[in-house]
Amino acid sequence: MAMKRIAVLTTGGDAPGMNPAIRSVVRYGISQKLEVMGVFRGWWGLINEELKLLNHRSVSGIIGQGGTILKTARCAEFFTDEGQLRAFNTVKKNNIDGLVVIGGNGSFKAAHLFCTKYNIPCIGIPASIDNDVNGIDVTIGTDTAVNTALDAIDKIRDTATSMERIFVVEVMGRDSGYIALTVALAGGCEGVIIPEKELNLEDICHDIVHGNLVGKMSWIIVVAEGAGRADDIAKRITDMTSLETRTVVLGHVQRGGSPTAVSRALALDLGKVAVDCLIAGKTDKVVGLSCGKIVEVDLEHAIQKKDLRIVDLYNLIKILT
Amino acid sequence: MAMKRIAVLTTGGDAPGMNPAIRSVVRYGISQKLEVMGVFRGWWGLINEELKLLNHRSVSGIIGQGGTILKTARCAEFFTDEGQLRAFNTVKKNNIDGLVVIGGNGSFKAAHLFCTKYNIPCIGIPASIDNDVNGIDVTIGTDTAVNTALDAIDKIRDTATSMERIFVVEVMGRDSGYIALTVALAGGCEGVIIPEKELNLEDICHDIVHGNLVGKMSWIIVVAEGAGRADDIAKRITDMTSLETRTVVLGHVQRGGSPTAVSRALALDLGKVAVDCLIAGKTDKVVGLSCGKIVEVDLEHAIQKKDLRIVDLYNLIKILT
Amino acid sequence: MAMKRIAVLTTGGDAPGMNPAIRSVVRYGISQKLEVMGVFRGWWGLINEELKLLNHRSVSGIIGQGGTILKTARCAEFFTDEGQLRAFNTVKKNNIDGLVVIGGNGSFKAAHLFCTKYNIPCIGIPASIDNDVNGIDVTIGTDTAVNTALDAIDKIRDTATSMERIFVVEVMGRDSGYIALTVALAGGCEGVIIPEKELNLEDICHDIVHGNLVGKMSWIIVVAEGAGRADDIAKRITDMTSLETRTVVLGHVQRGGSPTAVSRALALDLGKVAVDCLIAGKTDKVVGLSCGKIVEVDLEHAIQKKDLRIVDLYNLIKILT
Amino acid sequence: MAMKRIAVLTTGGDAPGMNPAIRSVVRYGISQKLEVMGVFRGWWGLINEELKLLNHRSVSGIIGQGGTILKTARCAEFFTDEGQLRAFNTVKKNNIDGLVVIGGNGSFKAAHLFCTKYNIPCIGIPASIDNDVNGIDVTIGTDTAVNTALDAIDKIRDTATSMERIFVVEVMGRDSGYIALTVALAGGCEGVIIPEKELNLEDICHDIVHGNLVGKMSWIIVVAEGAGRADDIAKRITDMTSLETRTVVLGHVQRGGSPTAVSRALALDLGKVAVDCLIAGKTDKVVGLSCGKIVEVDLEHAIQKKDLRIVDLYNLIKILT
Repeated sequence: MAMKRIAVLTTGGDAPGMNPAIRSVVRYGISQKLEVMGVFRGWWGLINEELKLLNHRSVSGIIGQGGTILKTARCAEFFTDEGQLRAFNTVKKNNIDGLVVIGGNGSFKAAHLFCTKYNIPCIGIPASIDNDVNGIDVTIGTDTAVNTALDAIDKIRDTATSMERIFVVEVMGRDSGYIALTVALAGGCEGVIIPEKELNLEDICHDIVHGNLVGKMSWIIVVAEGAGRADDIAKRITDMTSLETRTVVLGHVQRGGSPTAVSRALALDLGKVAVDCLIAGKTDKVVGLSCGKIVEVDLEHAIQKKDLRIVDLYNLIKILT
Repeated sequence: MAMKRIAVLTTGGDAPGMNPAIRSVVRYGISQKLEVMGVFRGWWGLINEELKLLNHRSVSGIIGQGGTILKTARCAEFFTDEGQLRAFNTVKKNNIDGLVVIGGNGSFKAAHLFCTKYNIPCIGIPASIDNDVNGIDVTIGTDTAVNTALDAIDKIRDTATSMERIFVVEVMGRDSGYIALTVALAGGCEGVIIPEKELNLEDICHDIVHGNLVGKMSWIIVVAEGAGRADDIAKRITDMTSLETRTVVLGHVQRGGSPTAVSRALALDLGKVAVDCLIAGKTDKVVGLSCGKIVEVDLEHAIQKKDLRIVDLYNLIKILT
Repeated sequence: MAMKRIAVLTTGGDAPGMNPAIRSVVRYGISQKLEVMGVFRGWWGLINEELKLLNHRSVSGIIGQGGTILKTARCAEFFTDEGQLRAFNTVKKNNIDGLVVIGGNGSFKAAHLFCTKYNIPCIGIPASIDNDVNGIDVTIGTDTAVNTALDAIDKIRDTATSMERIFVVEVMGRDSGYIALTVALAGGCEGVIIPEKELNLEDICHDIVHGNLVGKMSWIIVVAEGAGRADDIAKRITDMTSLETRTVVLGHVQRGGSPTAVSRALALDLGKVAVDCLIAGKTDKVVGLSCGKIVEVDLEHAIQKKDLRIVDLYNLIKILT
Repeated sequence: MAMKRIAVLTTGGDAPGMNPAIRSVVRYGISQKLEVMGVFRGWWGLINEELKLLNHRSVSGIIGQGGTILKTARCAEFFTDEGQLRAFNTVKKNNIDGLVVIGGNGSFKAAHLFCTKYNIPCIGIPASIDNDVNGIDVTIGTDTAVNTALDAIDKIRDTATSMERIFVVEVMGRDSGYIALTVALAGGCEGVIIPEKELNLEDICHDIVHGNLVGKMSWIIVVAEGAGRADDIAKRITDMTSLETRTVVLGHVQRGGSPTAVSRALALDLGKVAVDCLIAGKTDKVVGLSCGKIVEVDLEHAIQKKDLRIVDLYNLIKILT
């Protein structure tokens, strides 16, 4: 059966680049003679039949905007049988032949469940600042979040240097140390603490004390939220070194803002690819870039714990400090 | 006695614009046939005789840099008789005829004390993101801090809108609500809590609940650090409204970054004015802009609690939401 | 006769801050029990009756956006009797009791003509990056344009320093040297050429040649568009010094972008003040800030050539280089 | 013979990311027990023996700065036998065992010539905003230049939309359409003109005229400098459509600014890899990323015309407009 109408939704935490992804799905879909519906607030909108037909103009002027015009939500109800059935009824009632799901790890768990249970074609587009989708290089939004965090680190560096202080800066990333590692490298930070590597605070404190003796007075230690809280780390550093320590928790600032060129280009590209997949009769996949090439990854594989190659990067940070 | 050699120092918290202020003092001073010494780490450097002669090239390339090349520190020792005496000895030993002190409220308390006790000509240049200097419109660095906080608010807005959430965002400013008010106005925020005005959280919660009924689902409440902690406010909002609330504490990010045009122009202008004051034999003053005109304010007056005209601004925020 | 319905329009070149000004006029107007119509494309929309009633939601989410949601245009027809008559008919037909005109010098010439000829209350809000409105300190949008140009100058500085080159950078401002002067000061530029001061290129070339001898190899000369073209200036510098020269014309980039805190706060403030003026029965005025205070200036005065106090600033740039 | 002392230089046009590349070469080199000399002004410094030993502190605080602390230059003399001989003498006299050359296509032509003629080990690090090095994905600096150009396009969009105008925006890239294509895609531009594809201005004009009829009034056409001048293109569009057209030439702004996270991380990574290559006895290579993996490409191959896969991207831009 040929695809005639598809729907697109954004779920989970918002990420910069969701809007250009929507734009691409809608405009490319229309160019392929599809009708494209926009579902509001993710799975919630599918359950509650909050959706509408989108046209070329519906997605004008959004390419550079953070967030998502379709809004997003976390939706516990979708993990119940009743919720899924109601979502399925919306799909049937609106003659939706396929779904494009824009989101991260959690969104794809739901998508996998839904498309296998009800045999609705589903293609995922990975958008999340946590870079938590397995089998692909990087999620839409990650580059933007990294640059936002880097800009903050650069600013904090001004005070760290001027006042010769130790800062512990907590960045986002849930269970992933990707943002922390990248920002620590690019920001010239003196230490990084990530969930993928056992914490050895003694080493960091040793470096600080030794550095102080030779005149290195300012330090920025980046900690991934999945590896500890800035306040705890700072307190322990102070306990071990007797040096005053300041903390900054970058927080939700990292989730917003106009997407970078990398985040936009990836979003626009994958929007097209996702629609092509649906047209080709594919389902239960996430599309993404891996080593510079477009790949289609089984959702079941994509939702596994992402394997982050960190050792080299981690060592480089240490050497370059 | 004609002024032959002056010294410049930055003290207290760093602020964006300290570097262009230093640049102006040094280059304008030299143009007026003065020698200019740079003191490192504020009063600490005066006590410990850490200072050196600066030339035209010493301040090249710093006009757009945050922080201060002279470094800064808070220095408890300067508030002891012994500390002051040692600082005075440095001044005498190095033939320093006058001091330019770049800093905020606390720095000027120290400067006032020092210049009256030892009869050393001192002129203050107001640089602090807290806008806490009385008798002048705005301190160097405030405009930069406000724009940094505004950029953060704009980013948080993306998530607030996309996820339809309530955010409480804590901004800097110590005892002053200036940053909070300005950012809340310019960011289109739905509420603002400042130390200058009694908190009426019931009103804010009433607005939120009422707004939700008519479809307004996202809120950003700005709180000045001097008026409460984001976490406390958020918890109380959740208690009163049963609505989930997120918090962001912008923190030290607001202190760094390349100074804006306003911060730079003010710094460059006041650097010249401060040197002119010393040459003219003035002392115990802070220079600044008031209603668009250069003024000289007695340090004793400048260190009083700043009178912030807030009522109009506060009301305007409420009306425009 | 009490004011019941007003209209707001943006005319002339767009400026960052027009959107928050519209937001303020609409929301404050509504809070004062007025109906507020938005006219599209400036005077053209009045002539062609392109306008519609705006509500609180019409201006949601625009506070941080450059440009103007009402669009703008230059409209020659409005300077004909017929065009004015048609505009007047739109005003009458739609029961519009007063107009808020957001624009610059040219827009106010038209507004003055229209409100005196047809006795329609008109209040101007000064928004233009050219800072060309007489009797007030600064127009909405100027601070944003200055910061955008400054950011560009900072970037060009990287290449000027790394490649040891001379750059001539042309900035906007029509007949005004305001942007050029401010940017040259804040950017640490080595020369500035403005329409308000006779060009003495020999002096600049002398400085360059002399500087080269003592090792100063990179130069940025800022030229206001009203004082010459970058290419001409560059060619003449090369002719006089035999040194290679590069040019950059910043152009329309300076007109766009999210308004700064200063531009937004001014826009929001003046929107309220303009509405208050109309309610108070005032007309033929522009509202603005002068020396930190709200003023109402006769349109006839506002459209005179702005008197820019430049001598001090010009000299300071020269001394600090 | 073991490598004991290496030298690093930056040549050709400066690019954002050269500084972190220098930092990485110096600090990683030192960690591997090498001495690292910095050569000033590229090949010119080698010819004129302008170089000095660098230490860990020499590269402090430069990770986020645009340009290059070693300065750069284009040097015709290096393409003469005498110039090369003098450069060789500097290498010998200073006991330099290997060279790291940071630059683009032109720099590598010179490096290839030099290292094959005199048997001096040379490894290239690709840094250039033109993305003109064959055999690798992307040069250091390109991502920064693209984001700078994108930011400019976003700002121009504000005016294009508000005034309903056609803009022709010229971006850098020499013979390459990479920046133009990426920016046009990410900026949602309505047309793009690149050297790799024959210009069909009739098509673009047809789109504009047709678009105008259905209410699409604003257009941004991006032109790569290698494919034509903005002014010419604009004139021809006006001739064919009778519509007013504006131009912006972004120019050198694209070459400066703090490097993005992508540019910094690539620079830091490749700095290490280049040093490792020298230690391993390799020469006449450029290091880079290809499809996500580190590769070593023969300089002879790297200096060939880069093969840009553009068809897909070009078509996607057309479809998504």
